[in-house]
Amino acid sequence: MKKIINEPENYVNEMLEGIYLAHHQQTKQVEDDPRCFVTTYKKDGKVAIATGGGSGHLPLFLGYVGEGMLDGCAVGDVFQSPSPEQILAVTKEIESGAGVLYIYGNYNGDIFNFDMAAEMAEFEHDIHSETVVVGDDVASAQSASIDTKNNRRGVAGIFFVYKCAGAAAAENMSLDDVKRVALSACNNVRTMGVALSSCTIPRIGKPGFNINEDEMEIGMGIHGETGIRVDKMKKADEIVDELMTELLADLPYKKGDEVAILINGLGSTPLDELYIMFRHAGKILDIKGISLFASYVGEYATSMEMAGASITLFKLNDESKRLLSAPANTPFFKQFQL
Amino acid sequence: MKKIINEPENYVNEMLEGIYLAHHQQTKQVEDDPRCFVTTYKKDGKVAIATGGGSGHLPLFLGYVGEGMLDGCAVGDVFQSPSPEQILAVTKEIESGAGVLYIYGNYNGDIFNFDMAAEMAEFEHDIHSETVVVGDDVASAQSASIDTKNNRRGVAGIFFVYKCAGAAAAENMSLDDVKRVALSACNNVRTMGVALSSCTIPRIGKPGFNINEDEMEIGMGIHGETGIRVDKMKKADEIVDELMTELLADLPYKKGDEVAILINGLGSTPLDELYIMFRHAGKILDIKGISLFASYVGEYATSMEMAGASITLFKLNDESKRLLSAPANTPFFKQFQL
Repeated sequence: MKKIINEPENYVNEMLEGIYLAHHQQTKQVEDDPRCFVTTYKKDGKVAIATGGGSGHLPLFLGYVGEGMLDGCAVGDVFQSPSPEQILAVTKEIESGAGVLYIYGNYNGDIFNFDMAAEMAEFEHDIHSETVVVGDDVASAQSASIDTKNNRRGVAGIFFVYKCAGAAAAENMSLDDVKRVALSACNNVRTMGVALSSCTIPRIGKPGFNINEDEMEIGMGIHGETGIRVDKMKKADEIVDELMTELLADLPYKKGDEVAILINGLGSTPLDELYIMFRHAGKILDIKGISLFASYVGEYATSMEMAGASITLFKLNDESKRLLSAPANTPFFKQFQL
Repeated sequence: MKKIINEPENYVNEMLEGIYLAHHQQTKQVEDDPRCFVTTYKKDGKVAIATGGGSGHLPLFLGYVGEGMLDGCAVGDVFQSPSPEQILAVTKEIESGAGVLYIYGNYNGDIFNFDMAAEMAEFEHDIHSETVVVGDDVASAQSASIDTKNNRRGVAGIFFVYKCAGAAAAENMSLDDVKRVALSACNNVRTMGVALSSCTIPRIGKPGFNINEDEMEIGMGIHGETGIRVDKMKKADEIVDELMTELLADLPYKKGDEVAILINGLGSTPLDELYIMFRHAGKILDIKGISLFASYVGEYATSMEMAGASITLFKLNDESKRLLSAPANTPFFKQFQL
């Protein structure tokens, strides 16, 4: 895979320089560290929301920092966690008098570093934080309930958690309520994907794994984590059938339920193909009597130039419908009132 | 290249089915032909704007049909022009009492079919139309002035022409004035790109051409048209230097000028790399004393899964700044007031 880059070791910082320059009115760095990224939009008395994780997943995470969504974000090197100090720097900057909610994907390095940052914020700076860890990838483990240990990885569905929590914070809900909203979104968001090709980490310079030209990997993670199985390449409708079957089986659905759907491209899969997938996913919902409340199609959480796609279903209630419909204006995600 | 598709001959219509389903409140088809695509938003007395061209370039063209931009669009098969009858069907549907402006890229098939549709609209339906043909690709030919024959191809820069003309129509300008705005945008928009890999037309099933693993093609068109030359793969900054040099030489620029910039991904180039390019393009503008008024980074005009990117510069004046800043709400492009 050819890349339009300079020195591989500057990949992340040069990408960040570009983002700050392109979105200079909306974003700024903290403590001279470009990996500590916050919005210039600040509202006193609002719960502040921070996220973070490895680079290489744009528009995740940076692209969702802005009005109506997140307040700040710390990113690490490609597929590496940010440090506790970086998370703390973001936390101190965004805190606005109502506490901080951390929302991030279920990866050990991130959990360890966010927990450490939370302790430092509490004991050294008297900033109270709460944490919601997102694990929406049904392919990655059996357990999904937030009441028990959720071993699932966080993938594209985190977008819906950000959107609802961000809108809740914008409504001036308390930290407890914003956390409740985020947990409720986690409980109702499920994702599953298929990978057709690997991506290449710039510093490493060769693909992380190989998938044969006539094969695909069902359930592969966005860092190349092993999926459920390798299968022969199938037609779009067959792939969507398989993903939707798993997604719909993982939560209780009944006729009349409403969902939001996200068809997410992993990097190099054209928008045309995502809409071909959407078409069949929509048909399946229609047959089940499930209503489509809102549709999102595009690249929301990628793995650089990986080919493939994921489907996320978000089962809605009146509160999540209201929050999902609220406007948002971030570098990547813009929504007028639905 | 593996594709998530069903039968290749259904590629375009299934993609369209997905788009109608995902954006059912905003879009509809005309005369039972899914390739005749219009917005549900209609305003009496407003100049209507139509575009069209081959499929395979999403979000171009369909994604820009909506409030504040275009009213309708006819698309053909992958890289094929829509028919005069399809363009006419769109024209009849969107006409709202103030005439129709056609804006499309400079390709022979499109010119032939839009001209024929314009004649049919005029003589059979008494609908007056005007035409603006966009040729922004500086690599494709010498001539650029709209006063002489412009032999350049239309590529990603058409986005800026849509945006300004759409905002002008939303301001209730007359057909003559919307055309003047569109021509002025054409005169000030320049694009140049680099391709790193081919794409595969689904019906054909193999790449349209090959670029060696250590090479890139400077100035290649979005259908694989030959560029200026094949070169060894270079670093991002060197590529940007070369593209920006050509772009800045093609229009008279002076200190204090303001521009909008679009770094466009051709399909499989990650957003990270586009921001790395943006970073250096922004530095070059800064050195020249040219101000960055607005920044757009992402996939705006693709060639399915082609790897590569283009840079578009749009030299601004007070009118184009106002029009560019206006809100827009289409399936792909959403902008709050800048």
